[in-house]
Amino acid sequence: MRAYDIIKNKRDGMRLEPEQIRWLIDGFTRGEVPDYQLAAFAMAVFFRDLDDTELGALTEAMLRSGTVLDFSDIAGVKVDKHSTGGVGDKISLPLAPAVAACGVKVPMISGRGLGHTGGTLDKLEAIPGFRVDLDEPAFRRIVRDVGVCLIGQTASLAPADKKLYALRDVTATVDCIPLIVSSIMSKKLAEGIDALVLDVKVGSGAFMKKIDDARTLARKMVGTGRAMGKRVVAYVTRMDEPLGCLIGNALETREAIETLHGRGPADIVELVEVLGGEMLLLGGVATDLDDGRVRIRSSIADGSAAAKFKQLIAAQGGDPSVVDDPDRLPQARSSESFCATQAGVLAAVDCEGVGLAAMELGAGRARASDAVDPAVGLRMRKRVGEPVQSGEPLVDILHNGRGVDACRERLARALQVGAAPTGARPLIIERLD
Amino acid sequence: MRAYDIIKNKRDGMRLEPEQIRWLIDGFTRGEVPDYQLAAFAMAVFFRDLDDTELGALTEAMLRSGTVLDFSDIAGVKVDKHSTGGVGDKISLPLAPAVAACGVKVPMISGRGLGHTGGTLDKLEAIPGFRVDLDEPAFRRIVRDVGVCLIGQTASLAPADKKLYALRDVTATVDCIPLIVSSIMSKKLAEGIDALVLDVKVGSGAFMKKIDDARTLARKMVGTGRAMGKRVVAYVTRMDEPLGCLIGNALETREAIETLHGRGPADIVELVEVLGGEMLLLGGVATDLDDGRVRIRSSIADGSAAAKFKQLIAAQGGDPSVVDDPDRLPQARSSESFCATQAGVLAAVDCEGVGLAAMELGAGRARASDAVDPAVGLRMRKRVGEPVQSGEPLVDILHNGRGVDACRERLARALQVGAAPTGARPLIIERLD
Repeated sequence: MRAYDIIKNKRDGMRLEPEQIRWLIDGFTRGEVPDYQLAAFAMAVFFRDLDDTELGALTEAMLRSGTVLDFSDIAGVKVDKHSTGGVGDKISLPLAPAVAACGVKVPMISGRGLGHTGGTLDKLEAIPGFRVDLDEPAFRRIVRDVGVCLIGQTASLAPADKKLYALRDVTATVDCIPLIVSSIMSKKLAEGIDALVLDVKVGSGAFMKKIDDARTLARKMVGTGRAMGKRVVAYVTRMDEPLGCLIGNALETREAIETLHGRGPADIVELVEVLGGEMLLLGGVATDLDDGRVRIRSSIADGSAAAKFKQLIAAQGGDPSVVDDPDRLPQARSSESFCATQAGVLAAVDCEGVGLAAMELGAGRARASDAVDPAVGLRMRKRVGEPVQSGEPLVDILHNGRGVDACRERLARALQVGAAPTGARPLIIERLD
Repeated sequence: MRAYDIIKNKRDGMRLEPEQIRWLIDGFTRGEVPDYQLAAFAMAVFFRDLDDTELGALTEAMLRSGTVLDFSDIAGVKVDKHSTGGVGDKISLPLAPAVAACGVKVPMISGRGLGHTGGTLDKLEAIPGFRVDLDEPAFRRIVRDVGVCLIGQTASLAPADKKLYALRDVTATVDCIPLIVSSIMSKKLAEGIDALVLDVKVGSGAFMKKIDDARTLARKMVGTGRAMGKRVVAYVTRMDEPLGCLIGNALETREAIETLHGRGPADIVELVEVLGGEMLLLGGVATDLDDGRVRIRSSIADGSAAAKFKQLIAAQGGDPSVVDDPDRLPQARSSESFCATQAGVLAAVDCEGVGLAAMELGAGRARASDAVDPAVGLRMRKRVGEPVQSGEPLVDILHNGRGVDACRERLARALQVGAAPTGARPLIIERLD
């Protein structure tokens, strides 16, 4: 077999055999097929797509490139959630402990923020002492004892994906649906889960800007997961404005804690209930989706979700007292407001622009190697559709002296005050299974 | 500027600025832009093409990546010919000395064979002692003193092309018209020529199988050359069966010598006269194309072309006595025939298959690093349309014991005996300027 022929066949629109894809990925993982051949292959896939059989073969090859965790010795159904990412998306933080508090095990491997999007790991690390770099035995022990653990991708899980993602990142082949599907699903299936709930974001703050692309991505992820014997449900949800009111790592952890105390913003609460209810249903704990939602709501109302979050934080080396006293989280030294220059309503938000505005302060990364400042970020004072007076604050900028001007410039471009809101759609657009 | 943005813009069908292309190629040549980014770029170009401005910028960037020879101190117009390659294409060997004998200087930088195609350098090296690896001062001296010199690409001429071609060769991006155009034209324009005649082959033995692709390639090469101030004429010519009767390095040199002695096969003679006549016209020696043809024919008839070939061989370290005694060229130890199994006419030839059949004997290379056996090859005993008896030899296999069975298998698939020839077309299909 030759990498050349595989590239050429894909380039010419021919269907690849599963063994060709396996051979290519195995060779790439071992360093025998060079980067430049995979770069050409990825670009050919961008133009020619992969059919379901090819996609399954690619996902499986990447999954099998490393360790596949096995939690079968831990009783019960193991369920995870994955979001394709957006601005203000701190859902995993309240969701995972709430689901675990209801009796479903949640082994969750998360990522870091890049560009306009935040990452769950960065938000957790805003908690003093919290460690996300646990090894697999520790991960396993905490899932068994606490019922939930959130760590970063280890070197041994899907190493082919790690290597391929780094290459796609510098060759303009990240935004390619089959490569996104195989990347997400190979990592998630390597976690040893039985079922998965996917939150596919669509809108100005998401990777998928168009509803059709989001649907295609959701459908292909569900299909790929099913083909590998997992129960997978996908939601397509709105990412046209930031989720919740707070953007930035410690700020989002604070909002997650507020949600666990029953004081969360409506959109965060709804997503936690719906995605959590679905996880309970897949986990065999709820009788139907409504029952699942009620159980999640109860776990928040009776304090068991917040208690589970404390247990989780303690198990991962963090200071659980932040749950009772969020002021112990890092806080920015300065605050100023970005105000409206005319009256009207907040008509539209370029959500990616808002994410980049937070990045300018140090809340996010331009490059994967950048450090983040956990304390800084934005507080949205208005949501789309709300009336605005001229001179009234739209956003609070919580900063440590860095990037404020650039942040203001981005906000000025991202927020539109006008006569009426444009393009409103529901938070939860569609459910696919 | 970032390579990422350039790749992404091309991927998305946007037009690149000349300075973006220049920056990319300069960085690649210096090793600052890595192979994998150029591989992704080349594949994006495969799918999105380059417009004339982009193509000009790419060609110029590759041309300027190294030395550009300057022959302005040598009197007269310097003219070269380039063929896109095929099977049995030994035209450069009789053509270059014939044109030089008529008074036009020919500084020619040629290539080696790969796959089914032969290369001028390999054919010249079949002459004992002949050196193609001369440095630029020697090249310049021989062009000045003899009027013609044929060497291989030096390290200093268009190094970006050398590097990019090696990358395209392993990433399935060789057969991409804008990349072919920029590769050929950057090398040819680096020779310091004033004018160029292009022979764009089309048919089963050529890189371009379809007439439309060949026309596009020809048109774009002419346009790119003109944009850089050179006089360029292109011919689209037939490559549906091997040129001449002999295939293999020493065998083709022998046929070239026969042509210089006035005993060449009709198709070789016609191409030498037409392409040579065009070169004389571009070189200001002929008054029109017919006059050019007559002059070339006379140079063969009066022995001046053969004498010029002897001078050239001597100047490049070879044994000029091969021109008078071609038996001094390497000869295969064994010969056997490939015979027809039914009567009829030779209906069609898969010309690429015939080239690969010769490669099996060692006449060509599967990989650029392979060595060739100068002695071996094929003698075509029939041309398309000629009557054939059952059991009559179609091809003589001249070999040194290697690859004969594989050669026979390829010939059996490549040669069709039937009732009538299919798809005949003229040798010279079209002239573009």
